Amino acid sequence: MMQGFDTDPFAHTREMFHLPQQVIYLDGNSLGPLPRNAPSAISRVARDEWGEMLITGWNKASWMAQPGEVGDRVGRLIGAQPGHVMMGDTLSIKVYQALAAALDLCPDRKVILSDTGNFPTDLYMAEGLLRSMGQGHELRLVAPEDVEGAITDEVAVLMLTEVDYRTARRHDMATLTAKAHANGALTIWDLAHSAGAIPVDLADCGADFAVGCTYKYLNGGPGAPAFIYVAPQHVGATSPALSGWLGHEAPFAFERSYRPGTGIERMRVGTPPVLAMAALEAALDIWDDVDMIQLDRARVRLSDMFIDGLEAACPALTLASPRKAYARGSHVSFQFEQAYAAMQACIAQGVIGDFRAPDNMRFGITPLYLNDGDVEDAVEIIARVVNQRLWDAPEYQIRAKVT
Amino acid sequence: MMQGFDTDPFAHTREMFHLPQQVIYLDGNSLGPLPRNAPSAISRVARDEWGEMLITGWNKASWMAQPGEVGDRVGRLIGAQPGHVMMGDTLSIKVYQALAAALDLCPDRKVILSDTGNFPTDLYMAEGLLRSMGQGHELRLVAPEDVEGAITDEVAVLMLTEVDYRTARRHDMATLTAKAHANGALTIWDLAHSAGAIPVDLADCGADFAVGCTYKYLNGGPGAPAFIYVAPQHVGATSPALSGWLGHEAPFAFERSYRPGTGIERMRVGTPPVLAMAALEAALDIWDDVDMIQLDRARVRLSDMFIDGLEAACPALTLASPRKAYARGSHVSFQFEQAYAAMQACIAQGVIGDFRAPDNMRFGITPLYLNDGDVEDAVEIIARVVNQRLWDAPEYQIRAKVT
Repeated sequence: MMQGFDTDPFAHTREMFHLPQQVIYLDGNSLGPLPRNAPSAISRVARDEWGEMLITGWNKASWMAQPGEVGDRVGRLIGAQPGHVMMGDTLSIKVYQALAAALDLCPDRKVILSDTGNFPTDLYMAEGLLRSMGQGHELRLVAPEDVEGAITDEVAVLMLTEVDYRTARRHDMATLTAKAHANGALTIWDLAHSAGAIPVDLADCGADFAVGCTYKYLNGGPGAPAFIYVAPQHVGATSPALSGWLGHEAPFAFERSYRPGTGIERMRVGTPPVLAMAALEAALDIWDDVDMIQLDRARVRLSDMFIDGLEAACPALTLASPRKAYARGSHVSFQFEQAYAAMQACIAQGVIGDFRAPDNMRFGITPLYLNDGDVEDAVEIIARVVNQRLWDAPEYQIRAKVT
Repeated sequence: MMQGFDTDPFAHTREMFHLPQQVIYLDGNSLGPLPRNAPSAISRVARDEWGEMLITGWNKASWMAQPGEVGDRVGRLIGAQPGHVMMGDTLSIKVYQALAAALDLCPDRKVILSDTGNFPTDLYMAEGLLRSMGQGHELRLVAPEDVEGAITDEVAVLMLTEVDYRTARRHDMATLTAKAHANGALTIWDLAHSAGAIPVDLADCGADFAVGCTYKYLNGGPGAPAFIYVAPQHVGATSPALSGWLGHEAPFAFERSYRPGTGIERMRVGTPPVLAMAALEAALDIWDDVDMIQLDRARVRLSDMFIDGLEAACPALTLASPRKAYARGSHVSFQFEQAYAAMQACIAQGVIGDFRAPDNMRFGITPLYLNDGDVEDAVEIIARVVNQRLWDAPEYQIRAKVT
């Protein structure tokens, strides 16, 4: 679709969301807003499928096939080959699955390389897995900027989150994956802050594994199902650590021993969350028509406008995100000594972002439902909070460090 | 509440469910029916909480506290001490967590004892864990009737499903737990076919760990969250294998290393499924007023009526469940050579049960929404299907072995 420079290409998607009155929502990187059609979609599945079909819904309403079908809809947004993304569980569980599978493919190496900017649950899940394995693996953490230099032939798996949850600093997935492969290592990419945020091309990068959640940019709802991607060359070779019955070759044969299912099916674990999947499908109805390149252009424009506006209006804030748009994800962070209290004051003034310890104010810029006017208004309100010291009120100062 | 013999004490709970017209639903042991208030409850959470509160719903709507609060509501039905049940993930994942934690407490023993009647995913998840651990553990399976004799001081963990998913044969939880303890072993009880089916008293039995799902007898909806119970004496000593951020002592401190949360909180893994939890809460609104002893009396009466009726009407069927009501769970199975086709024919005639390979017809008897009339009608229809060979039609014979 051709768009003039003056036309907002996402005016129609904005209309598909419920956005509360008097709120500018800059936290879609934490929890996306409600697609207008989600409540009725969930109710319909509850009433017409669960209510009327009962147990037969697993076949009649395709509940059983849904995690793979929805996986393909998510897969289109992250450049996955069809049939290589499976929905289910939580991101933490999917990290565990991916790392266990990757280590299984590299039995002779003992180093998992990650960075200090990785989201903690990825590191925690790795700790738990390595402790269970008890084989002397090392979880080696380096600063994000030192990752490339730390990829050596000691490394079994390079496990990174593409976009830093605090700063939005973006790793170069293609370059790091290529270097990992050149050193005989596999890669796991956490796309929590990438999927629906920036263009991702897993197939083109040659990524081995990827995981992500769907409640952030994809707007699937609080606690929406996670996803896992396994590259074609690995999917038949992995022995799932979380070998649940729905990943079995023949779940309803009720065999006594596990046999992995074909391809990505083996990354299923337990019974899929049908009602949560209905909400996610409603959200994907919006995404199905979105061109990620066009979205990215809007992200860059709105983010740069936000940064320029806030820096001009608010000298007390220090940009904590990369200045160059290609080096960022779709959120923008500023450092401010009174970040916690200031964010509380912003929320009270109708701009919802969030605080990340120790001193980050984080704002999600989501063109699917934010426009120029929102960004301008947000800049004005945040500047007022900071410049007029609205944060310096007792009610905002109560919880100073950890929220 | 006093009830005369002629009064159905569950007439009011039956009214709280949507039961499709022309259907007698004897498969609540697989997927419970829709509570009438569930669709509006989910819609309300979607619209008023997700839609209006957005990210602030985690605190304002208590989404973060919900898995523990709901855990206590489930806990009442299984005799758990308050504060010792946590909701989340799937039953398969909870089995993995429980077994990993139990093995961690018994580092010097290598045998996990289970039985050949255990539900396959429990065995599959154990296989996967043991493979990851690579410490030479043995998953030892014996026939259900041989379990008691097989509990020796070699056993680290006795891992059983209380009620057999095919036959409804019930283990004696108190006796087996006591024998396990006398032999220095820990116990994991899978309550998939127990919770909401029969009275369970985990605290009284001294069970160490328990797990279960909520989409069967508890009617929480397809793919509803699972639960895990950890006994008071163990909960502070377990090092979670699935060490996700929401089980961390301070998730929002975003520390680099995992520290387990207090008590049962450490059994959390990732972000909880808020929408699915809303459906489960609607189901628990019904359960909160149910007395499990009264329910059990109704179960025994209806199940015995079903067995007696079917045996009298249908000599071709062979009872596969224990004849004594105390030795059964809340479903009844019959063996029949043409079980698959006959179940298809029953479903076509309006009686929904299910088939379990190789030759089981399985019927869930759920007094919460089934009454004497349903049982009488079901017996009549099943008998007609079997005696008049309605199963002997090409459309029911297509998939003969594995559904």
